[in-house]
Parts: sequence; structure tokens; C-alpha cells
Amino acid sequence: MTSHAFDQAIALKLQSDGSFAGHTSAAYANMVGPFGGISAAQMMNAVLLHPDRLGEPVSLTINFAAALAHGPFTVQARAARTNRSTQHWIIEVLQSGEAVLTGTAFTALRRETWSLDEEAMPQCPPPQETPHGQGPMPMEWVKRYDMRPIAGAMPTVWDGSGDASLTQLWVRDNPPRPLDFASLTALSDVFFPRVFVRRATLVPVGTVTMTVYFHADSAQLQASGSSYLLAQARAQAFRNGYFDHTAQLWNEAGVLLATTQQLVYYKN
Amino acid sequence: MTSHAFDQAIALKLQSDGSFAGHTSAAYANMVGPFGGISAAQMMNAVLLHPDRLGEPVSLTINFAAALAHGPFTVQARAARTNRSTQHWIIEVLQSGEAVLTGTAFTALRRETWSLDEEAMPQCPPPQETPHGQGPMPMEWVKRYDMRPIAGAMPTVWDGSGDASLTQLWVRDNPPRPLDFASLTALSDVFFPRVFVRRATLVPVGTVTMTVYFHADSAQLQASGSSYLLAQARAQAFRNGYFDHTAQLWNEAGVLLATTQQLVYYKN
Repeated sequence: MTSHAFDQAIALKLQSDGSFAGHTSAAYANMVGPFGGISAAQMMNAVLLHPDRLGEPVSLTINFAAALAHGPFTVQARAARTNRSTQHWIIEVLQSGEAVLTGTAFTALRRETWSLDEEAMPQCPPPQETPHGQGPMPMEWVKRYDMRPIAGAMPTVWDGSGDASLTQLWVRDNPPRPLDFASLTALSDVFFPRVFVRRATLVPVGTVTMTVYFHADSAQLQASGSSYLLAQARAQAFRNGYFDHTAQLWNEAGVLLATTQQLVYYKN
Repeated sequence: MTSHAFDQAIALKLQSDGSFAGHTSAAYANMVGPFGGISAAQMMNAVLLHPDRLGEPVSLTINFAAALAHGPFTVQARAARTNRSTQHWIIEVLQSGEAVLTGTAFTALRRETWSLDEEAMPQCPPPQETPHGQGPMPMEWVKRYDMRPIAGAMPTVWDGSGDASLTQLWVRDNPPRPLDFASLTALSDVFFPRVFVRRATLVPVGTVTMTVYFHADSAQLQASGSSYLLAQARAQAFRNGYFDHTAQLWNEAGVLLATTQQLVYYKN
């Protein structure tokens, strides 16, 4: 463990029954409860640290079943199926014996094959020429990221004037930290709720489920170092209490590292 | 249960221990094992039939952990968390006591809110003017669907000439059957592997995980009746053994019923 706030936040301790003990992080607090990305990273980390793990993360789905209370929690990660070169995980986070997060993960030994990025990185000014555009935010976790919005930043006027939900930003850990599967998991949840951007209206929201597909292996993540990622998200539908978004994260070299989608509850 | 092949295929019988007994369907057989969409629909059906279910499906993630053998299987669906108006499910399909499919689902009581489809249905000729374009296929499940490709059909010449992975098609059950959550789940897996379309090259493939977000409630599905759906899929990245796709399904009236993504293993 390094002294970086992220490493401290995702630290887990293996228990004698095979589960992991963790603790919510004040450094990654959101308005209510923790930043969802840090909870997802904690669950990913339980798989990464698990003595039975085979291969590297390829997909992860996390469901936010209840509000995580500030304090300790237990992560149970179970290899439901282990094949020759792939493995399927079922993950639960418990507080006071009750499930607060559920999830599944898929890990695999990857081999080099014909490869191609069909979704090209959009043309954007480089991060060094993109100013820090976010105003001051009350949420502690926002300070843990260096965010440089290009399009679709958090509205500063809430007048119902939004006309699209597309957001593009450069983002990396603050202070910088070399990219790995746990931090890429958290970065996949860095987007403000699409309904804020689309409507320029503040309504109660909460992510219900998030899926991340890791296109990069650990070598490609390592090659990204602590440089910025271009993160892009767009909603497809807002309907009767739930909206989705689909999102992509490229490194500065234009390699698509991860694609992700999530479903978010909203009121009104 | 009606006499429709789909209803027969997804039929489950509640056991005394709370699990469900099912059987693979010869009518929905794929090259090896069953059509993944029918397995997903069987898992969705276990939640739909569960006596403890609260609300309607909003999201579903299915992981294909191992090849399903032709024969009986057991579905275990467990409500990991029940809140006032939402519920989180963990689902496992077992054969000979081993997990072959894992998954999670989210159900909820939905309320009418401000709503908007951001992803508009693409301009396409109507289904009646779109010919059945698929050539004869050896897979039995393909006969259970009326597919009318508009763009990106299954290649007929395997010469490596592909240049995009976009597929658009009109599709419905064959014979027609009123749309519901189970059939929409299966229809979400109706796309041929993107790597076939992109490369015009046949390689071994298998879906690893699929997530479906249901934007429509049962009333909106019912309103779609047995009309065609416009189904669209596109890959974002092909990398070292795994590619993703992101997809949308609209009804003929242009309502976005579901968005879905999946990750698929490929060789070479």
C-alpha cells in the first residue's frame, strides 16, 4: 500500500473465513455515503487480492443495493466457476449482515489476437490546454480527481436549459497515480448524473447498477502511467425514474481502455 | 403457458427448496449449446415467477460461465436485498451442482416522471418493405425469429472485407408473440457476433456477459404487441480475445424499449 488516498481507501484485510474487511473512506465521501466509484473499486480489489484469482479483470458489474453507511464493511468474493483460463466471480458487500452491494466479475488469461478500436477517440484539445472547469463542489471525492471538462460540464445555472447529455472531460487521480484496474474502475464512475446535464435541473439521483468492460490488460494500463484519460458519457434514455448512460475511457495515446454503462435512479 | 415455442422454452417449475427446474430447448439450439438469449430469458423468468418479486425488471446482467449441456438445469434466484420499492437479485443456473450461468437483476416499482429518449431511432425503411435477408442458417434458434436486416447482415462471403460492425435489423418472434420482459431479454441477444460483421471472417466466439436495461415497463411492452423491433448493435473495441458491443431496441413507434451491451470471447 502506498500513501495515496486511493490506496488507503481500497485497502482490504483478508479474514480467516476468506472474506475481506474494509472501511468507507472519508476522502471519497459523496453527498450521501461514499462515491460509488470507490465502492466499485473496493469490490474489484477483493477479486484482485483473492488468493484463488485466475487472470485479469475483463468485466465487472456492480449493483448499489442500499446506501453504504460510514464505517466498516465485509466483502465476500466467491469464484462461482473456474475454467482453464477464465473465472466467474460473485461478490457481495455486507454491513451488519445485510447486502449493500452485489456484483459479478469475470477474469481471464488474455492472449494477443487481431485487435481494433472501432470507437475512435473524439478530437479534443490536449489536457494541458483544457482548464480546470469545475467550480467548487461540496463533495469530498471530487477533490480526489483532476477534472478538465471539454463539453457537458456540470451546469452552473439550474434553469432547465440543457439540450444534450454528452460530457467529455480529461480526468486523472489527484495527485496523479499510475493507472491500474482498481483506479480505472473508480474512474468509470466519474461522470456527474446525465439528468443534471440534460435538464440543467437538480433532482435526487443514485446509481443503481454499473458495468465496466476492461479492454486493456495490465500492461496497457501500466503503459498509460499517470497520464490523463479522455472520458466521454452520453445517456440513451430517461424513463419513469431511471436513465442509462454509455461511456468510454481512452488514454492520451487514444487507446480505448474501458467501456462502461450504468443505470441511475432519478426523481421527478 | 401458451403453445408458443418461446413459452415452452422458458417454462420453469418451482421446487420445494425455492429453486426452479428448467430444461434446455431444442427449438432454440445454437451451434454448440442453446442460444444465449434463451438462457438469459430463462434466468429472467425465474425472477418474474419468483413469489418474493417486488416490481418489474429494470436491469439484468447474465454471465455465461460454462457451456450449458442439453438437458435439465436448476435456477436459483435469491432476493439479496429488498427495499421499499426496489429489489436486488442474485441468480445462478446449475447443472450437476456446478454454476453454468451467474447473474444479477434489479426490479422496481416505477413511477411516471419527466422522460425523454436521447437516442433516436435511426431512419430505416419499414419492416414490410425490408426483405428477409438472412440466407439459410444451420442454427435452429434463428428459425424462431423473423429477421429483416437493413445494414450489417451476416456476411455471405468470408473474404476479410468488412469495414464496420454496425448492424440494423427489424426483428420479432416467429411466429409473432406479444412482447414481454422475457422475450425482450432474448431479443437483446439476437445479434450475430460483431467480429463476423467487422472482419467478414469466421472465428470461434462465445458471449461472456450481457447486460440489459429495460427502459419500458410492462404497459409499454404490451403496447408494442407483436410488432417488429428495430435492433441496432455496434462494437466499440476488439482486443486480445474479447470484443464488446452496445445495442438498442426500439419498437415500431420509435420508443426505445431497451439498451444492452455484451462482451464476447473470440479467437485469432
